[in-house]
Amino acid sequence: MDKLVAVITDGNLRGLADELQTLVGEEVELRWPSGLEQTRAALADADAIVGGRFDAELACVAPRLRLVQVSGAGTDGVDRTALGPDVVLANTYHHEDAMAEYAIWAAIGLRRGLPTADAQLREQRWTSPAQDPGLPLPLSLAGARVGLYGFGHVGERAWRAFASFGSLGAAVTGRGSVDAAEHGLQWAGGPDELLRLCAESDILLVSPPLTAETRGAVGAAEIDVLGPDGILINVARGPVVDDRALYEALRDHRLGAAAIDVWYNYPPPGTRSGAPASLPFADLDNILMTPHISGVARATFEGRISDIAANLLALRAGRPLINLTT
Amino acid sequence: MDKLVAVITDGNLRGLADELQTLVGEEVELRWPSGLEQTRAALADADAIVGGRFDAELACVAPRLRLVQVSGAGTDGVDRTALGPDVVLANTYHHEDAMAEYAIWAAIGLRRGLPTADAQLREQRWTSPAQDPGLPLPLSLAGARVGLYGFGHVGERAWRAFASFGSLGAAVTGRGSVDAAEHGLQWAGGPDELLRLCAESDILLVSPPLTAETRGAVGAAEIDVLGPDGILINVARGPVVDDRALYEALRDHRLGAAAIDVWYNYPPPGTRSGAPASLPFADLDNILMTPHISGVARATFEGRISDIAANLLALRAGRPLINLTT
Repeated sequence: MDKLVAVITDGNLRGLADELQTLVGEEVELRWPSGLEQTRAALADADAIVGGRFDAELACVAPRLRLVQVSGAGTDGVDRTALGPDVVLANTYHHEDAMAEYAIWAAIGLRRGLPTADAQLREQRWTSPAQDPGLPLPLSLAGARVGLYGFGHVGERAWRAFASFGSLGAAVTGRGSVDAAEHGLQWAGGPDELLRLCAESDILLVSPPLTAETRGAVGAAEIDVLGPDGILINVARGPVVDDRALYEALRDHRLGAAAIDVWYNYPPPGTRSGAPASLPFADLDNILMTPHISGVARATFEGRISDIAANLLALRAGRPLINLTT
Repeated sequence: MDKLVAVITDGNLRGLADELQTLVGEEVELRWPSGLEQTRAALADADAIVGGRFDAELACVAPRLRLVQVSGAGTDGVDRTALGPDVVLANTYHHEDAMAEYAIWAAIGLRRGLPTADAQLREQRWTSPAQDPGLPLPLSLAGARVGLYGFGHVGERAWRAFASFGSLGAAVTGRGSVDAAEHGLQWAGGPDELLRLCAESDILLVSPPLTAETRGAVGAAEIDVLGPDGILINVARGPVVDDRALYEALRDHRLGAAAIDVWYNYPPPGTRSGAPASLPFADLDNILMTPHISGVARATFEGRISDIAANLLALRAGRPLINLTT
């Protein structure tokens, strides 16, 4: 058999390049291009591409391609109409622990005002009811009502973490098929109950896939009922939350705070800078802004390279692949 | 019986003043002075003082005092030599959930560089291996080695939280009497194993009481073996960690990062500003600085007012008090 050629475009995997090569052995040639031009050249005789994005422009320069292996869960970066009849699409997960950590980090910090207290103590101001009895007592996660919009790998794992701190939970999913009792949730419903979920939550964790149905699903009405003490955490895709509604509610303190890890604009491949949105979120002091790293941890990618290697070896041997998406 | 008079000096309890009054009923008069002068005046006919500090100066103006009820765990703010023969000393807890949350918040954020990524994205720089494959992959709490210096209410509860994220743990306590197997720890030992604990930990959580033995116990040697990837979290009392050793190790990046909630200087009673240390910790970018709020949450004080009310009513009725310390 010829060597199988795979082009890796996800920079997150670079730190595990040796480990991935060991997993696939010498039968698979791994290529690690930088930027779009190198990627196009590398695809000329490639059997597989491993990364988050695929479109007609790449398809044109990849005549031998048989597998688009998304290196994460979301396949919204793949133009399915660009997939030839012999090209299959697969994804992978393993980010749920890291994303649950991120959600807990954001929720504790924002609910208790810890980043603000840090900024103020650096200016020698002690922001605590001990010094200022007029301040409200901060609230912990115990008893917090967590609304889970999306209850896949991420929502379910994050809920287990919140539950371990004594929070209450409810979930809304696209199919509305979650068994609330099985998961210890107060209730679970379908998309038409999203407004109710927001109204009844102190913390909203947004984690559904980006689809035609979820795009803009968290809009002005949902954010307003989450309210001035509410916290919104988005680890899904930026456009699930309406950018202008989010910005204006934070600016006007109609929403308490937000942790936003997923954005409306991304830097072009091979570059590292750029505004994440057209609105000036960075001017706000009630937002945590992170560069799409809620799932980025070594353990995530150790799990993913195992799945990726399995699929590359299966492709070469003509065996069935895992995590195929339709 | 006369009314019992209690003077409350802990501002954290002000937000629950009505709830505490309801618990003690009309039999107990609660006084809420602001600042030292009002406190001295209020103590003239007081039976009890509820707060963190007590010394000879206050004892002199409180001839009827029978109870010093510390409103937290640490009794290091009480000069025991100032307690008359008929005055008893009690404390209370209930902060362990809030402090465990704080430790988890600090550990996740610092281990994964989330506050730094936030600051950089505000300047439109994307600090992620996705954009910059030369960056190391961030580490999650799974597999992190957590060293627990102190394993009382706080250390034990924080360890349960870390364990739920898949961390490994070991503990050093003053008496060295923790059963490692019972708590799922790798090992547990006494004070002479503190240096080993630091050397074998990725995250050190400092939570022992401040005593002659623990003052300065985390010094230059302990911090150096924690090392450039190590994280130090202090929720005990500032002076358990040597201030100069901590500052210089952070400045020189011999210690990775720290979250410091307890300090070397505090604002005078009734005031809200002042430098928390004589060294310029605020100039460092690898520290989280919070104003002694790791245990400050509404749930903490709801638990404490219940204990406090029970002791005030017991004192009035001549019944045995709870949480007496010797």
